[in-house]
Amino acid sequence: MSPVVNSVAYAGGRRVSDVPIKDISEVLKEPDRFIWIGLHEPGEELLREVQQEFGLHDLAIEDAHRAHQRPKLERYGDSLFIVLHTAQMNRARRGIDFGETHLFVGARYVVSVRHGASLSDAEVRSRCEATPELLSKGPGFVLYALMDFIVDQYFPIVDALGDDLEALEGAIFDGSLRRETATRIYQLKRDLLEVKRAVSPLVDVCNQLMRFDLALIPEDTRPYFRDVYDHAIRINEMVDIQRELLTSALEAHLSLISVEQNEAMKRLAGWAAILAVPTMVAGVYGMNFDFMPELRWRFGYPGVLIVTLAICGFLYFRFKRSGWL
Amino acid sequence: MSPVVNSVAYAGGRRVSDVPIKDISEVLKEPDRFIWIGLHEPGEELLREVQQEFGLHDLAIEDAHRAHQRPKLERYGDSLFIVLHTAQMNRARRGIDFGETHLFVGARYVVSVRHGASLSDAEVRSRCEATPELLSKGPGFVLYALMDFIVDQYFPIVDALGDDLEALEGAIFDGSLRRETATRIYQLKRDLLEVKRAVSPLVDVCNQLMRFDLALIPEDTRPYFRDVYDHAIRINEMVDIQRELLTSALEAHLSLISVEQNEAMKRLAGWAAILAVPTMVAGVYGMNFDFMPELRWRFGYPGVLIVTLAICGFLYFRFKRSGWL
Amino acid sequence: MSPVVNSVAYAGGRRVSDVPIKDISEVLKEPDRFIWIGLHEPGEELLREVQQEFGLHDLAIEDAHRAHQRPKLERYGDSLFIVLHTAQMNRARRGIDFGETHLFVGARYVVSVRHGASLSDAEVRSRCEATPELLSKGPGFVLYALMDFIVDQYFPIVDALGDDLEALEGAIFDGSLRRETATRIYQLKRDLLEVKRAVSPLVDVCNQLMRFDLALIPEDTRPYFRDVYDHAIRINEMVDIQRELLTSALEAHLSLISVEQNEAMKRLAGWAAILAVPTMVAGVYGMNFDFMPELRWRFGYPGVLIVTLAICGFLYFRFKRSGWL
Amino acid sequence: MSPVVNSVAYAGGRRVSDVPIKDISEVLKEPDRFIWIGLHEPGEELLREVQQEFGLHDLAIEDAHRAHQRPKLERYGDSLFIVLHTAQMNRARRGIDFGETHLFVGARYVVSVRHGASLSDAEVRSRCEATPELLSKGPGFVLYALMDFIVDQYFPIVDALGDDLEALEGAIFDGSLRRETATRIYQLKRDLLEVKRAVSPLVDVCNQLMRFDLALIPEDTRPYFRDVYDHAIRINEMVDIQRELLTSALEAHLSLISVEQNEAMKRLAGWAAILAVPTMVAGVYGMNFDFMPELRWRFGYPGVLIVTLAICGFLYFRFKRSGWL
Amino acid sequence: MSPVVNSVAYAGGRRVSDVPIKDISEVLKEPDRFIWIGLHEPGEELLREVQQEFGLHDLAIEDAHRAHQRPKLERYGDSLFIVLHTAQMNRARRGIDFGETHLFVGARYVVSVRHGASLSDAEVRSRCEATPELLSKGPGFVLYALMDFIVDQYFPIVDALGDDLEALEGAIFDGSLRRETATRIYQLKRDLLEVKRAVSPLVDVCNQLMRFDLALIPEDTRPYFRDVYDHAIRINEMVDIQRELLTSALEAHLSLISVEQNEAMKRLAGWAAILAVPTMVAGVYGMNFDFMPELRWRFGYPGVLIVTLAICGFLYFRFKRSGWL
Repeated sequence: MSPVVNSVAYAGGRRVSDVPIKDISEVLKEPDRFIWIGLHEPGEELLREVQQEFGLHDLAIEDAHRAHQRPKLERYGDSLFIVLHTAQMNRARRGIDFGETHLFVGARYVVSVRHGASLSDAEVRSRCEATPELLSKGPGFVLYALMDFIVDQYFPIVDALGDDLEALEGAIFDGSLRRETATRIYQLKRDLLEVKRAVSPLVDVCNQLMRFDLALIPEDTRPYFRDVYDHAIRINEMVDIQRELLTSALEAHLSLISVEQNEAMKRLAGWAAILAVPTMVAGVYGMNFDFMPELRWRFGYPGVLIVTLAICGFLYFRFKRSGWL
Repeated sequence: MSPVVNSVAYAGGRRVSDVPIKDISEVLKEPDRFIWIGLHEPGEELLREVQQEFGLHDLAIEDAHRAHQRPKLERYGDSLFIVLHTAQMNRARRGIDFGETHLFVGARYVVSVRHGASLSDAEVRSRCEATPELLSKGPGFVLYALMDFIVDQYFPIVDALGDDLEALEGAIFDGSLRRETATRIYQLKRDLLEVKRAVSPLVDVCNQLMRFDLALIPEDTRPYFRDVYDHAIRINEMVDIQRELLTSALEAHLSLISVEQNEAMKRLAGWAAILAVPTMVAGVYGMNFDFMPELRWRFGYPGVLIVTLAICGFLYFRFKRSGWL
Repeated sequence: MSPVVNSVAYAGGRRVSDVPIKDISEVLKEPDRFIWIGLHEPGEELLREVQQEFGLHDLAIEDAHRAHQRPKLERYGDSLFIVLHTAQMNRARRGIDFGETHLFVGARYVVSVRHGASLSDAEVRSRCEATPELLSKGPGFVLYALMDFIVDQYFPIVDALGDDLEALEGAIFDGSLRRETATRIYQLKRDLLEVKRAVSPLVDVCNQLMRFDLALIPEDTRPYFRDVYDHAIRINEMVDIQRELLTSALEAHLSLISVEQNEAMKRLAGWAAILAVPTMVAGVYGMNFDFMPELRWRFGYPGVLIVTLAICGFLYFRFKRSGWL
Repeated sequence: MSPVVNSVAYAGGRRVSDVPIKDISEVLKEPDRFIWIGLHEPGEELLREVQQEFGLHDLAIEDAHRAHQRPKLERYGDSLFIVLHTAQMNRARRGIDFGETHLFVGARYVVSVRHGASLSDAEVRSRCEATPELLSKGPGFVLYALMDFIVDQYFPIVDALGDDLEALEGAIFDGSLRRETATRIYQLKRDLLEVKRAVSPLVDVCNQLMRFDLALIPEDTRPYFRDVYDHAIRINEMVDIQRELLTSALEAHLSLISVEQNEAMKRLAGWAAILAVPTMVAGVYGMNFDFMPELRWRFGYPGVLIVTLAICGFLYFRFKRSGWL
Repeated sequence: MSPVVNSVAYAGGRRVSDVPIKDISEVLKEPDRFIWIGLHEPGEELLREVQQEFGLHDLAIEDAHRAHQRPKLERYGDSLFIVLHTAQMNRARRGIDFGETHLFVGARYVVSVRHGASLSDAEVRSRCEATPELLSKGPGFVLYALMDFIVDQYFPIVDALGDDLEALEGAIFDGSLRRETATRIYQLKRDLLEVKRAVSPLVDVCNQLMRFDLALIPEDTRPYFRDVYDHAIRINEMVDIQRELLTSALEAHLSLISVEQNEAMKRLAGWAAILAVPTMVAGVYGMNFDFMPELRWRFGYPGVLIVTLAICGFLYFRFKRSGWL
C-alpha cells in the first residue's frame, strides 16, 4: 500500500489547488495561503521532503517516523509538534486498537502524520471546507478541527467500556460466572488504564494551547480549544469514575464470594450434623452385644427409625430457622 | 409540554414587567434595568432568539441546548457561562435524579436554562423579590441566589445517604442480611460517587467567582458567594467522610464474614469430633470376630454406651471452654 | 437555662469593669480599652445587640447563631470571624462530644460564642488576667489564649484514643475477642476521623493568622500563634499515625483470622484422617461374609485393635511433626 | 584489574590527542579545546589528581569515590555534578544489576566515573566522534550523549519486565502454579520498585538541565535534552503502568483463589452428601433388630441397592445442575 | 545524675577555654569568639541562665525544657531554634529508642540540649576540633557537624530494619511461622512509621537552612548542608521502599495463606473421597439381609477387598495427577 498523501493549499477558507510537495515553497510565495498535508505512515524519504519544505526539526521528524511516542506538545522555534493518541473499537476481537496522529503546525502549514488505528482526516477536511468562514482563521483552526475529531472518537469507546462494566455488575450480583468475572474485571481494568493513558495527557496539551500566547492560535479560536479541553476532561472523568466503580465492583465480587462460601460452609455443616444422627444410631444398633434388650423388642426397629427421623426433623427445622440451611 | 419561559425586567430591586424575548433590547434601553429569564428545556429556536438578544457565544448556546456538560465556569468576553448539576431524591425508586442548570450572566441579564431533575427557580425569584434591597444589587445577586438554592438542595440528599449508611452499619454489626449488604454497599458507593462528582466542581466555581475581579460581582456581594462556597465545601466534606466510613464499613463487613466463617469452621470441627466417637465405638463392637469377650458381658452394652457418652461429654465441655462450640 | 453572658472591659492588661452590652459603645469611647465578651448558646436577640454594637456582618451572625459550621477563618473588613471545633471525652458513654466556639475579633473587642460541648472560657480569662503584661497586648493575645485553650483540649482525647488502640492491639495479638475486635476497630476509626476533621482545619487557620499582615496580631504576638500552630500540627500527626497503625492493626487482624482458619482446617483434616482409620477397619470386619478367616482367629480381635491403634498413633505423630495438629 | 582511564582532548568536534591527566592544564591553554575523561571505579589517588586539574569540590569527589548515591544534579559554582543510576539485565541469575555513573561537567571538560553494572562509554564516544558537527557543540552535547545512552538502556529492561508480567498473567488465568505465582508477583514488584527508584529522579534531572539558564547547555542543544527527558518519562510511565497492572493481577490472583476454594468447598459438600446416603442406608440395614421384615424379603437386598443408587443419581444430577459438582 | 554541661569558647577554629555559663557575656566581648555549649537534660534553672546570656525566647526555652516536640526549624529574630529527633538501636529489647536534640544557633553561639536516647556530642566536638580550618567558619559549621552526626545515626537503624524485612521475607516464602509472621509485620510497620516520622521533617529543615539567605550560614558552608539534606532524603527513600516492600510482603503472606488453605482443602476433600469408598462398601456388606448371595461366595471377601483397593488406588492416582493430593 503506497502511503496516502493529501496536500492542499487554502486561501481565504477555500481550497485553491492540490500541491505536490515539491512545489510548496512556490505556492507559499503568494501571501494568505496555507498548506494542509495529510500523510498516513509515510516513508522516511517523503518525510525528509516535507521537513525540507517547512524547515522542521530533526528530532521531531524522527519521532514522526518511528511513532510510539507519548502524547505531548513540543515547541520548536515558532512551530508546534503535537503527538496525539487515537483509539477505535475493534469489534472483531472485542478490544481497542490504538494509533497515533502527529501534527506539525506552523503559521502557514498543518501536517498530520497518522500511524496505526487512526481514522482518515478526509472527514475533518470536508467538514472544514463546508465552513469557509471558520477555515479562513488558518492553521490554528485546522489544528482545533483535527483535535476535536480525535477526542470525540473516545466517547463511543468510553460508552462501550461503560456497557461492559454494567454487564459485569449484573454478573457479579447475579452470582453467575464467578470464574470468568475475575478475568473480565482484569481485562476491563487494563482497557481503562490504556484509555486513561491515551487521554489524560490531552488535557495538558489543550491547556497549553489555550493559555500560552501563541501566534498560531488567535484570540477568537481559543474558545474552540476550551471546548476540546472540556471534552478531554469529561472523557478523563468518565474513565476515572469507571475505574473507581470497577474497584468497588471487585470488592463486591470478593465479598460476595466470601458470603457464598460462608453459606456453603454452614449448609455443609448443617447437613453433616443431620446425617450424623441416623449413622450413629444405626451404628449403635449394629453392635453385636449379646445383651441388647432393644434388639429383641417387637417394635424396636420402627421405633428407632421414628425417633431418629424425629431428631433429624427437629435439627432440620432448627437449622432452617437460624439460617444455616 | 411547551417550554417554560419566564422573562421579567427588574429595576431598583423591583419587578417592572414581563418582557417577551423579542422586546428585550427595547427594554434594556432604559438604564438601571436588568432582565432575568428562566427557561426549562428550551427548543433550539428559542435559545437562538435569546442568543441574538444578548450576543451569547455559539459554543455556550450549543452546550446549553445539548446539556450533559460537566459543572464549569467559562468566560466569554464580559459575560459568564456557568453549568451546575442539580440533584433531587426520587422517593419512588429510592435513588437520586440528577439535572443541570446552565446560567448566562451579563452586566444586565441572567438567563437560567434548566434540564432534567432541576427544581423551578420560581421559589428563588419570589424570595429575591421579597428583599428588594438585595435584589437591587443586580445580576450578581441573582446569580448568588440561584447558586445558593441549588447547593442547598444537596443537604437533604447527603442526609438521606447518611441514614442509608447508618442502616447499613446496623445490618453489618447485627450480622443480618450478609448477601444484600454487599449489594447495598456497592449501591451507596455509586450514589456517593455521583454526588461527589456533581458537587466537587462547585467549590472551584465558587472560588473563581469570589476571587477574580469580575465586574459582575460587586465587592459587597462577595461574602454571599463565600457563603455558598462554604456550603459546597461542607457538602463535599460530608460526602468524603461518608465515603471513608463506607470503606471502613466494607472492611468491617469482610472481617466479620471471616470471623463468622472461622466460628462456623470450628463448630463444624468440634461437632464432627464429638460425633466421631460413638460412630467409631459402635463400629468396633459391630465387628464379627468370634472372640470378642466384651460382647458376651452382661453389662457390656450399657457400659459401652455410658463410656462413650462420657467421652462425648468430656469433649463437649473441653470444646465449649476453648470457644470452639 | 438563661444564656451565659460575660462582658468585661480591659485597659492596660487589667480588668476595668463589667459592661452591659448596651453600654459598650459608651465604654469604647475611652481610648486603650477593649471588650471581651463570652456567650454560651445565646438567643438571636442578644446576638443582634452584639452585632449592632460592633457592626458585625449579617452572614457571620447567622453562622454564629445556627452553629454547625466547619472550622474556618473569614475576614469581614477589618474584623475576623473564626469558627473552631471543640471536643471533650464523655466518660459516661465512652465517646467524644464535639462543640463549637465562634470568635469575632476586632481591634477593640473579642466575642466568643460557645455551642455544645465547649468548656467555659472562665479559666482562660482568669489565666489571662494573671499575666497583665501579656493581656495588655490586646485582642490578638486573647485570641491566642482562647485558641491555645481549645487546641490543648485535644491532647487528652488523642491520648485516650491511643490507649484504645493499644488495648485493641493486645486483643488482636492475644487472639481473644475476634468478633468484638472488628466492631471496635470500626468505632475507633470513626472517632479518629471525627477528631481529624475537627483538628486539621485548625492548622490552616493558625497558618493564616501567623502569615497575613493583620493589624490585629502584632509582630511580638506571632510566636504565640506559631506555638498553637505547632500543637495543632502535632495533634494532626498523632491522629494520622494512629490512623495508619489502625489500618495495620486491621490487616494484622485479618491475616491472623486467616492463619487461625488455616490451622483449624488442618487440625480438622488431621483428626478426620486419624478417626477414619478405625472406622474403616471396623467396617471391614463388620461385613457378613461367610469366609472371613480372620474372624475365626483367636487373637484376631485384639490384633486388629492393636494394628489400628498403631496406624492411628503413626498418623498422629506424623501430623504432629508436620504441624497439622 | 587496573582502573580504566580514557582521557582525550577534542577541538572543533574532532579528537586531537590522548592526554595524560597531568598534562590537562597544559592542553587546556589552547582555546576551543575540551577534555573528555572516562574512568571506571578509579582509586582515590586518581580522583584527587582529576580534582586538582579541574578544581572540583571535595564533597563531590567523596561521593564519586564512595558511590551509593541517589540520582541527583548538583551545582558547584559553574560546574555540574550529576549522578545517574544504570541498569543491565543479568541473564545468568534472571535479575537486574544496577550501577552508577557520576558525571562532572564544566565549560571545558566532561568526566564520567562508572561504578558497578555500568556499560563502557566507548560506544558513546565513537558515536559522538562520528558526528563532529554535533560534538563541536562541546561538553553540553557530550553530557546529552551520555545521558541518552544510559536512559536508553532501560528500555530492554522494562520490556523484559513486561514479558515477565505477561507470563505471570498467563499463569494466573490458567490457574497453574498457584504457590509460585505469589512469589513471582513479589519478585516482580521488587524489580519494578528498584527500576522506578533508579529512573524517576532522571526526569527531574533532565528537567533542570533543560530549564535553567546554564551556560553549559547552549540553546540549540536543549531539544536534545527534551528528547532524553521524553524517554525518561516514557520509561517511568511504562513502569507505572506495569505496577498498576501487577496490582490488578494480584487482585485477580486472590479472587481466583477464592473462587477455586469456593468451588472445591461446594464439590466436597456435594460428594459428601451423595456418599452419605448409601452409608446411612447400609447402617440401617446393618442393625441387629430381631424384627426387621425387610431383611427377610427375597429382593430386599437388590431393592435397597437400587433405591440407594437412584437417590444418589438424583442427588448427582441436582448438584450438577446447580453447579456444585 | 547531675546534668552534663560542656561550655567552650572557640576562636579561629581553635578551643580557647572552658567558660562557666555566667562568664559568657564577658568572653563574647572579645571579637571573633564563639561559644559552643552542650547540655544533657538540663534543669529549668540552668536553661534560664543560658536564656539570659543569649537572650533566647521564652517559648523556645519552654520547648527545650519539656521536650516532646516534633522536628522543626523556628526563627526568633536573628537566631534559630532547631528540634531534631535522634534514634538508637536498643539491642537489649530489639527495638529503637528515640531521643531529641534541640539546637539554639546565633551569630556567636551554638547551644545543644539533648533529651533521651541521644548520643553525646563529645565525638562531634573532637572531630570539629581536628579540622580547625573548617571549625573557623563558626556556628554555621558546628550546626552542620551536629546535624550530620544525628542524621548518620539513622543509617545503621535503617539497615537493621532492612535485615528484619529480609528475614521476614524468608519466613513468608518458606511458609514457616505463619502466626508470628503477622505479629512481626505489624511490629516492623510500626518501627518504620516511627523512623519515618523522625526523619522526614529533617528534609524540610535542611532545605530551609540551605535556601534562605541566613546570615548564619555562609555561602561556602551551604554544600555541606546539601550533603546532610542528601543523606536525609536517602534515609527517607530507604524507609519508603521498605514500607512499600513490607506492604507487598503482607500481600504475599495473605495470598500464600489462601493458597495453603486451598491446598489443605483439596487434600482434605481428596482423602475424604478415597476413604469413603471402603467405608461404604463395608457398610453394604455389613447389612443383614437374608439373601445376599455375595456373602456366600468363597472368594467374596478377598474379591471385595481387592475391588475396593483398586477403586481407592484409581482415585488416588487421579487426584494425584490433578494436583489435589
